[in-house]
Amino acid sequence: MWSRNPFDPAIEGDWMYGRGGADMKAGIVANIFAMDAIRNLGYQPAARVHIQSVVEEECTGNGALACLVRGYNAEAAIIPEPVDDKLVRGNVGVLWFKVSVKGLPVHVRDAGAGQNAIEACFPIIKALRKLEEAWNVEKTNFKYYKDTEHPINFNVGKIKGGDWASSVPSWCEFDCRIAIFPDWDPKEKSLEIESCIREASLNDAFLSNNPPQIEWNGFFAKGYVLEEGTEAEKVLGESHFLAYEGDMKSFISPAYLDARVFMVYGDCPCLVYGPYSENIHGFDERVSLSSVRKITKTIALFIADWCKLEKI
Amino acid sequence: MWSRNPFDPAIEGDWMYGRGGADMKAGIVANIFAMDAIRNLGYQPAARVHIQSVVEEECTGNGALACLVRGYNAEAAIIPEPVDDKLVRGNVGVLWFKVSVKGLPVHVRDAGAGQNAIEACFPIIKALRKLEEAWNVEKTNFKYYKDTEHPINFNVGKIKGGDWASSVPSWCEFDCRIAIFPDWDPKEKSLEIESCIREASLNDAFLSNNPPQIEWNGFFAKGYVLEEGTEAEKVLGESHFLAYEGDMKSFISPAYLDARVFMVYGDCPCLVYGPYSENIHGFDERVSLSSVRKITKTIALFIADWCKLEKI
Repeated sequence: MWSRNPFDPAIEGDWMYGRGGADMKAGIVANIFAMDAIRNLGYQPAARVHIQSVVEEECTGNGALACLVRGYNAEAAIIPEPVDDKLVRGNVGVLWFKVSVKGLPVHVRDAGAGQNAIEACFPIIKALRKLEEAWNVEKTNFKYYKDTEHPINFNVGKIKGGDWASSVPSWCEFDCRIAIFPDWDPKEKSLEIESCIREASLNDAFLSNNPPQIEWNGFFAKGYVLEEGTEAEKVLGESHFLAYEGDMKSFISPAYLDARVFMVYGDCPCLVYGPYSENIHGFDERVSLSSVRKITKTIALFIADWCKLEKI
Repeated sequence: MWSRNPFDPAIEGDWMYGRGGADMKAGIVANIFAMDAIRNLGYQPAARVHIQSVVEEECTGNGALACLVRGYNAEAAIIPEPVDDKLVRGNVGVLWFKVSVKGLPVHVRDAGAGQNAIEACFPIIKALRKLEEAWNVEKTNFKYYKDTEHPINFNVGKIKGGDWASSVPSWCEFDCRIAIFPDWDPKEKSLEIESCIREASLNDAFLSNNPPQIEWNGFFAKGYVLEEGTEAEKVLGESHFLAYEGDMKSFISPAYLDARVFMVYGDCPCLVYGPYSENIHGFDERVSLSSVRKITKTIALFIADWCKLEKI
């Protein structure tokens, strides 16, 4: 469904197209080129700078977590996600889970005597949609989320079930993702999800005796908020002003970001800040090259100010 | 979900357990042993007997059809399906189809802007369930089906969709089976199913512009009725009476049977008649061995009467 080969990057005007070009090779490039720019001028940072490039940001966050556990922490961190020339004020936590539903297979001639595991998933998914709406209502309790239209997003991303058109399917499983507000505890919310699924199964004679199995198979992550007023944000804002000739804006994200690793476990202010992009995780993903250049400039200026420079 | 290894057959009392033991190795064995029994007594049929063992009875019927196309027809046929010591009076036609639904993938943080292909399947499946009920209402028009509780069975047997928990899924496909009454034309009914799916998609802004694709990927078969009064049925009934010391009963089946090949295309009366079984197509499939012996006896007596015997 791409207009071009997603793995054959192409530039058209200010846009670079390609799978992962925006999310987030652009950011990695900005980090590296910022360091190169400083060196090309005959300088180096007067304090230590780590450049980290980690895996798993899209499914567990364990890559960033592993770096932290190994001791790579700092006084401030920048994660150059493609967040449209803005600073992320905070983000939701995310939970991943797989629900496995059993059915009772019988010959289709007598389908009524069986239990269709595929169709048994529908009311469970509907119940999870209701939980999503109930959680969204609670946004008024969260300063930074109360004006976000739909901060808690639930997604059924994958489904697989049954073996054969003419047998009532005996199994079906589906993979889900849901967000939780920054203060919320993943464990507590996972129990709420388990209750929701169990209750949705009680209306069904077969499922109430054969409850769906729930596996927590990825993100089990708390969210975070970068409260206003950190020195790191002030320095980034000044650097941004020089590069963009305008004030840096901030926004709250309804997606997972590795920043939670630094913020929740590392006690390190984390600035998620990066270039303008479109269609990440979708078709025809693209990033603005002029934006990548300005972001690179901001990061270079941030390093110069935060670490100070010295002649090589 | 079997109590024992399904491919390691076991006998307990009168039951033989094993996958395919009832449906339908038992019947094939009955056919072969009937011929052996005649030979062991020093006789052979005075007319030609074909023993056919075909593939694909469960998904297309093309095995039996291929035999017929090659010229293997007869004046009467017996198919020893596990139909509980009874004769099948007729059966439904069956259609198989796969429905492929597209979605619009976006990052889950903005799920509302996308279209979830998995959830888009639910209203389509519900519409097909309504069609199933509408078709069942028409049973009053069919002499042999009007007393059958639920002759038309629809089944969603398989589903698969999406690639990843955190992306709104861009595709989902599901495999279906539905029955049609004996007189109904498969082509005509396939168009009705296509209309049903198209209509169910019109309520949805995305699907109405991206209609689901429908593939007819297996059975596309008319049903049949074995009208009462054939000479073949009379001879089988007399043979059954000798083996069972009781009258042969008949019933109408809501499943597909290869008999339609002989009845619809071969102009050959086809007697579907075989042993008592439980849980075919399910867990712990089993067949009654005393029933297999009596069925074998009936078939041997049928051959003796229908073909007459001669000394080897």
